[in-house]
Amino acid sequence: MTHSHRLANRALAVGAVMAPTMRFLNFMFEHESRPGLANFAVGNPQEMPLADYVSALERAVPPRNKEWYAYKVSEAQSQETVSASLRAWRGVDFAPEDILMTNGAVSALYVALWTLSEPGDEVIFNLPPWFFYEAQITASGAQPVKVRVHPETFDLDLNAIEAALTPRTRAIIINSPNNPTGRIYPPETLRALGDLLSDASARHGQPIYLISDEAYSRIVFDGREYPSPTSYYPYSLLVYTYGKTLLTPGQRLGFIALPPTMPERETLRQTLMTAQVVTGFSFPNALLQHALRELDSLSIDIGKLQARRDRMVSALREMGYEVHSPEGTFYLFPRAPIEDDWAFADVLLRHNILCLPGTVTEMPGYFRLSITANDEMVEQALPGFERAMNEAVRQGAR
Amino acid sequence: MTHSHRLANRALAVGAVMAPTMRFLNFMFEHESRPGLANFAVGNPQEMPLADYVSALERAVPPRNKEWYAYKVSEAQSQETVSASLRAWRGVDFAPEDILMTNGAVSALYVALWTLSEPGDEVIFNLPPWFFYEAQITASGAQPVKVRVHPETFDLDLNAIEAALTPRTRAIIINSPNNPTGRIYPPETLRALGDLLSDASARHGQPIYLISDEAYSRIVFDGREYPSPTSYYPYSLLVYTYGKTLLTPGQRLGFIALPPTMPERETLRQTLMTAQVVTGFSFPNALLQHALRELDSLSIDIGKLQARRDRMVSALREMGYEVHSPEGTFYLFPRAPIEDDWAFADVLLRHNILCLPGTVTEMPGYFRLSITANDEMVEQALPGFERAMNEAVRQGAR
Repeated sequence: MTHSHRLANRALAVGAVMAPTMRFLNFMFEHESRPGLANFAVGNPQEMPLADYVSALERAVPPRNKEWYAYKVSEAQSQETVSASLRAWRGVDFAPEDILMTNGAVSALYVALWTLSEPGDEVIFNLPPWFFYEAQITASGAQPVKVRVHPETFDLDLNAIEAALTPRTRAIIINSPNNPTGRIYPPETLRALGDLLSDASARHGQPIYLISDEAYSRIVFDGREYPSPTSYYPYSLLVYTYGKTLLTPGQRLGFIALPPTMPERETLRQTLMTAQVVTGFSFPNALLQHALRELDSLSIDIGKLQARRDRMVSALREMGYEVHSPEGTFYLFPRAPIEDDWAFADVLLRHNILCLPGTVTEMPGYFRLSITANDEMVEQALPGFERAMNEAVRQGAR
Repeated sequence: MTHSHRLANRALAVGAVMAPTMRFLNFMFEHESRPGLANFAVGNPQEMPLADYVSALERAVPPRNKEWYAYKVSEAQSQETVSASLRAWRGVDFAPEDILMTNGAVSALYVALWTLSEPGDEVIFNLPPWFFYEAQITASGAQPVKVRVHPETFDLDLNAIEAALTPRTRAIIINSPNNPTGRIYPPETLRALGDLLSDASARHGQPIYLISDEAYSRIVFDGREYPSPTSYYPYSLLVYTYGKTLLTPGQRLGFIALPPTMPERETLRQTLMTAQVVTGFSFPNALLQHALRELDSLSIDIGKLQARRDRMVSALREMGYEVHSPEGTFYLFPRAPIEDDWAFADVLLRHNILCLPGTVTEMPGYFRLSITANDEMVEQALPGFERAMNEAVRQGAR
C-alpha cells in the first residue's frame, strides 16, 4: 500500500518561501556551463583558490596526535584565534569563551534563530535581503517581518523598523556590509538603531536580539572603517563566515561572537552550544580548526576587487546604467533599464552574461552582479552589457 | 537597562533533556587528561588516524579547478560513489539522486526529523538509545516516545512498539548495530517491524517513517551479514556517517539514502535538500567530497577490534562481570556489579578507568566501554577492572 508523503507544515512553508530562489537556481544551473558565459550570478570563485589557503590546509592535514580528527566543538585554540583577531581588527575584547565556532554562517544563523525565537514570535529583516533569511526564519517557526531600506540611500529605514516592532518581536537581522546593495550602515544609523531596540526591549520587558550578519565585514573598500552593529547594542550576536574573505564557501568555517557588553553571556552561550549539537553538530571540521590561525590572516585581494568594482561601475555608468558604487561586499546592484528584471536577465543571457534578477532579492527592477568574476570575464562581458542596454533603449527603457 | 535572556521554550526543553548527558560530559572533561587514565568513555580515537585517510586528504587538497572549494551540495560524484558502494556492499540499487550528502549523521537525523515531524507529532525511539535522540526529537518540536528493548536479548520489543504507535506517530528511529548494546536486529525482527509499520500506516492513512541510524553498519563482527531495516519497509531513510568506520568524527561526512522501494522519492528528496540548506547548509565540506571515493573504501581494522572485543569480554567474564559479546559497534555494555552505575563509575575512576554510566543511556545498572581504546590501554586497565569488581564484591555486589 502506498501513501503520499506527509511532510511537516514548516517544510512546506519553507518550500513556498524558496520558490523564487529555486527559480533562479534552476535558471543558473541550466545555463552556467554554456561555453563563453560570463557568470556574475553568485559569489562563487572564478579564479583558483588562494595559494596560501591551499598550503595552510596542506600543513594542517598531517596528524600531530591521536585526537587530530576526533570530535571537535568550539576548540579553545580556535576561540583564542578569533578573539585575538577581533581585538586586532575591531579593537573590541571578545572573550574567547564567547566565541562559538560554526560550520559557516548559515548554521550560525539557524542556531541563533532556533535559540532565540519560536512559533508565535516575529523576526525582522530588511529588504533587499540575502536569499535565505525569510526561509531560515520560517524554518525556525517564527514569523518573518520585512522592512524595506531607504530606496535612494539603501540605509536602514529606522522609522519603518520602529513601526514593525511589536511585543512579539524577538530578533532583527542586520546585514552590513549588505548583500546585495553593498551598503555599510553608518555609526549614526547603528547608534539610533541601538537606542530604538533598547527602548523597545525596556517597553516589552525582555530583550530584542540583534543578529548581525557580518559575512562581508572584511570586504570593505576605499580604506573605510567598518562599524559593527554589535558595538551599538548589547543584545547582539556577531555572525561571521570565512567563506567570503577566503572565497572558499565549500569549506564551512564561521562563528558567533557575543560582545563583552552583553549581560549574562554564560546562559546564552551554553544554550547556543547545545543548539549547535542538537540541530546538527554544526561545528567546523577538525582540519579547518587546525588551520584557522593561518586562515584568519588570509584574504582575497581587496585592492584588486576594488579596482574591478571601479572598472565595472564606470563602464556600466558610461553605457547608461544607473549603478551606485558599493562600499563593501563583492556585489554591484544596478537598476535594470527595463522594469522587468527577469526579462532583462534574459536579455543579458542572450549576450552570454548570467546575473541575479532583483526580484529574487525582493528588489524588482534591479539586478545583482558578483564581481568575484575574474578580470578577463569582465572585459569579455562589457560589450554584452552595452548591447543589452542598447536593446533596452530601442525597446523603450524607462 | 539589562534583561534576563529570553530563550525559546524548545531550547529550555532540550537543556532539561540533556542534563544527564551534560553531567557525564562534565565528569569526562574533568578527568580525561589525568595521567595514566584508560579512557573508555566515548568513541573517540585512541590511536593515530589511518595513514590512508591522511594521504587521501593530502591528495584532495591541491585544487584541480577554480570551483574546487566553491559551494558544494550533494555533488553528483559523491552520490555516485555512495550509490556504487551501497550496491557493492548491500546489493541494493540506491539511485544516485536519492543520496543526500550530509556533514555527518547528527545533521542527517535533524534534517530528517525537521522534515518529517513537527510540534504535536510523536517520534518513537528505543532504550537504551544513543545520547542525543531524545534531545534531537525535542529540538524538532515533536514528542519523544520511549520503548525499552527486551532486557535479556536486547532485541526490539515489537509488542511494546506496537503499543506505542498512535495516529500522531510520525517516525521511529531504529539503530542497528545498536549503540550501546552492540545488538544487530535480525531479519525476522525487521520483517515483523516492517509489517507492523505498514499496518499502522494503512490504519492511519499516512506513512510512518523509519529513520534507520546505521552509523555502525560497517563495524560488524564474526563475518556476519548486516540486515538493514531499510530493506524491510519502504518508508525508510538510511542514515550513515563515515565518522565511525574511519574513526574521524571531527571530519563530518555522512548521508541520507532513500531506498528504491520508497514511492514518490522526488518530493521527499527535494524537501530534505531544502531542509539541509535552511537548517544550516549541512552538506559535507568540499575537501571531504573530493576525497570521498578513496575514503569510502577505508576502514579501521575490524579484525583487530574484534580481537580486542574477545580479549576484553573473556577477561571481564573471568573477573565475574556479566557482559554479552556485541555483534557490532565498538562498545561493550557490561552490567555494573552494584546497582548504582554512577557509583561504580566512581570506583572504576579510582582505578584510572573512565567509563560511561548506563544511567546516561537510560539503562541504570550497566556501563558502557568504548573499545576504540588501544590495546596497551586495555592491558593496563584490566587489573583495575578486577580490583573494582573485588571492591564491589566486598561491598556486597548484587
